[in-house]
Amino acid sequence: MRRAIYPGSFDPPTLGHLDVIERAARLFDELVVAIGVNTDKAPFLPADDRLALLKECTSTLDNVKVTTFQGLLVDYARSVECGVLVRGLRAVSDFEYEFRVAMANRKLDPSIETVFLITRDEYSFLSSTVVREVARLGGDPSGFVPEPVARFIVGRRG
Amino acid sequence: MRRAIYPGSFDPPTLGHLDVIERAARLFDELVVAIGVNTDKAPFLPADDRLALLKECTSTLDNVKVTTFQGLLVDYARSVECGVLVRGLRAVSDFEYEFRVAMANRKLDPSIETVFLITRDEYSFLSSTVVREVARLGGDPSGFVPEPVARFIVGRRG
Amino acid sequence: MRRAIYPGSFDPPTLGHLDVIERAARLFDELVVAIGVNTDKAPFLPADDRLALLKECTSTLDNVKVTTFQGLLVDYARSVECGVLVRGLRAVSDFEYEFRVAMANRKLDPSIETVFLITRDEYSFLSSTVVREVARLGGDPSGFVPEPVARFIVGRRG
Amino acid sequence: MRRAIYPGSFDPPTLGHLDVIERAARLFDELVVAIGVNTDKAPFLPADDRLALLKECTSTLDNVKVTTFQGLLVDYARSVECGVLVRGLRAVSDFEYEFRVAMANRKLDPSIETVFLITRDEYSFLSSTVVREVARLGGDPSGFVPEPVARFIVGRRG
Amino acid sequence: MRRAIYPGSFDPPTLGHLDVIERAARLFDELVVAIGVNTDKAPFLPADDRLALLKECTSTLDNVKVTTFQGLLVDYARSVECGVLVRGLRAVSDFEYEFRVAMANRKLDPSIETVFLITRDEYSFLSSTVVREVARLGGDPSGFVPEPVARFIVGRRG
Amino acid sequence: MRRAIYPGSFDPPTLGHLDVIERAARLFDELVVAIGVNTDKAPFLPADDRLALLKECTSTLDNVKVTTFQGLLVDYARSVECGVLVRGLRAVSDFEYEFRVAMANRKLDPSIETVFLITRDEYSFLSSTVVREVARLGGDPSGFVPEPVARFIVGRRG
Repeated sequence: MRRAIYPGSFDPPTLGHLDVIERAARLFDELVVAIGVNTDKAPFLPADDRLALLKECTSTLDNVKVTTFQGLLVDYARSVECGVLVRGLRAVSDFEYEFRVAMANRKLDPSIETVFLITRDEYSFLSSTVVREVARLGGDPSGFVPEPVARFIVGRRG
Repeated sequence: MRRAIYPGSFDPPTLGHLDVIERAARLFDELVVAIGVNTDKAPFLPADDRLALLKECTSTLDNVKVTTFQGLLVDYARSVECGVLVRGLRAVSDFEYEFRVAMANRKLDPSIETVFLITRDEYSFLSSTVVREVARLGGDPSGFVPEPVARFIVGRRG
Repeated sequence: MRRAIYPGSFDPPTLGHLDVIERAARLFDELVVAIGVNTDKAPFLPADDRLALLKECTSTLDNVKVTTFQGLLVDYARSVECGVLVRGLRAVSDFEYEFRVAMANRKLDPSIETVFLITRDEYSFLSSTVVREVARLGGDPSGFVPEPVARFIVGRRG
Repeated sequence: MRRAIYPGSFDPPTLGHLDVIERAARLFDELVVAIGVNTDKAPFLPADDRLALLKECTSTLDNVKVTTFQGLLVDYARSVECGVLVRGLRAVSDFEYEFRVAMANRKLDPSIETVFLITRDEYSFLSSTVVREVARLGGDPSGFVPEPVARFIVGRRG
Repeated sequence: MRRAIYPGSFDPPTLGHLDVIERAARLFDELVVAIGVNTDKAPFLPADDRLALLKECTSTLDNVKVTTFQGLLVDYARSVECGVLVRGLRAVSDFEYEFRVAMANRKLDPSIETVFLITRDEYSFLSSTVVREVARLGGDPSGFVPEPVARFIVGRRG
Repeated sequence: MRRAIYPGSFDPPTLGHLDVIERAARLFDELVVAIGVNTDKAPFLPADDRLALLKECTSTLDNVKVTTFQGLLVDYARSVECGVLVRGLRAVSDFEYEFRVAMANRKLDPSIETVFLITRDEYSFLSSTVVREVARLGGDPSGFVPEPVARFIVGRRG
């Protein structure tokens, strides 16, 4: 069975992330969306909320599982015996950053393969950073994130 | 009447910013230089000083106004009924960053148009970050910023 | 009156070109779409056909004129007393190429200003080269070019 | 069964191509290496030789088939009922070119998914163009291409 | 005598840094590895440790000296009467960042020349940031840094 | 004695080339400007004229020699026992192209070191291609090339 991991911070999950999840779910038999939990930095959304929101957003995709992990991604991949990582490439993305991470992961574990998919062009500018900035300035995030995430972000404002 | 907004942090204003202002002032009937005031981060120069310095640096340009704004740029643009944003592109600039911001603004308000001008090649390396770094290390900022800004930065030291 | 030139080969005109034309027509009082006629290279479409097709595609835009020119763009711009050039920037475009041309034009005539607009994200991959390649291989160009251009290209196949 | 197509000109096949083939052969149940035959341009190696050489180079990979195709890639993919394309990304590659092709293919057939793999870093500079240039100038291509290809190229010199 | 400075934070020194040092030591009669000490930021490794480790790693290179400096690099270069700076370029590096720094230094002192060398392709993804991230997450840094640095980093964990 | 080769087509030599020559002549004891003569392509200027013009343009630089070579650059470098190549990097240059060539040369001969210098920012857009295009369209090349080259190009028009 072909399994793959889609790792990320998903802070918050965007429509671009969801697009990658849907594409990858068609390519692999099972897809694990793995939320990296970094205890050093204060996140925009707590890890538990990101987990719940991603589960809600992917509830109709039967072969998608959502989970969290700590520490090095390659260690997590080995622990679940999965050697394929999926990442989205945006037309206006930090391609060099993605490349560097993929090559560092390959150096740490040469059996790891990173597979890149291209997100829909209308999401090519979209990143969690943009969403956080828009949210911070009081803007409406609904064009950028799935509906449950938008509702959650706006709800937190009170 | 053709109006445009030139938004930015201008922290501090550089010779590159001034070059864009002069070019845009020739292209449009009125240009509003709009200093984004971000209450979260401690700025290098206080917003009031940036406002005063930009007014001084543009005093000979009759169709240029300088002001500050808070919150989302697209909301500010709508409040002053101006749908054209001007941004400078440097040869060695973060083109992808500019692109992403322009596309996010277009998504937030499809009537917004971002217009890019190319700064003079001798300013192609220049950014406020470079100026702040030079100033922090005790260097002379006078090749990087307009004369009133250089005087202000040096004056604060001592 | 604010006039601008949108220069290019338009061989053939694409939906991306039309998007730039519509955006520029809103920014300027008059827009001259100027087809560069290069007698050295065998074009995909003859200049006369490009002229006729661009006129048909822009017939509803009152302030848009279509014409051809030979020789250096800066000489043409001077001859029609217009110092503003418009170019589209695609998210996945040859930014460096555009930059180099704009800077060469500025060197040839410092009074020339090049203004860049961002094409719609769904056209970010689109270029005349892609259309020519698709057409050459017998593909359907209708998702890439305005309807009159698609009809013309397909009609030529006989 | 998960099948994928690895399309290209392979003119000539390089060690970078072979690296992508080996990686993709581990990811998919079947991999079709599809040599695009373009009747317009004079190739460096005739299509028949490229076919024979790629078959020789992949003879130990049981799930890899080599074939040729003409016309649009998306038409070929549909004809063999395979919606997944594989492409290699080099660290110093024409990322924008790959992106543009992938997006044009998606526009021509939205069911097509392009999957990018990263070639080994020691092949990051390598392209068929480099090999052709080295061969043309009388250099030794053996550090750039699989052994059968090197032997073939050198043998042609006579 | 041809002397050059190789400036950087070296926080920590990587195998890529060492590769640049070895290349530059062959090009120049004397090479000064100059560790920029920035009193504002908390470093990953204290400056004294970086100095000791770089001395240990370069002990077999007779024409290499290691030292620290504070303040502007161009002021340091002038104080040691050396006008040549060496920097490594990685295939997947922040080329624009390097360019901007080199041009800012040239503006601050036009007699300064920056010379770029290309690091080995297997280190093309490597940066101190990657090493710090791997170390922070408990990974093994030994594929990324010289042996004495790896031992030091692992030893600090206790 | 430190020697270096500055290889290129120099078709025609530009002010950017001359800037690199002057910088490299200060860095090395001897600089060989080596004009690659490619018998396959029809050049813009015959090799003999490029040789004569470069000799004229560098006549005041005592440690600069101009010559031509055929075949692979690494073979030429070995034949003159010189392992250092100099190349200019423009802010808006084809960095990836330069990188790829440098890495291919290193693969062909690992003892070869390529050293990159940054051209003056006012030449950052400048390439022989731009000059040829301007000349072809009847423009004045004098802002782009040394005076003897401009005179030669204009003189050929008759």
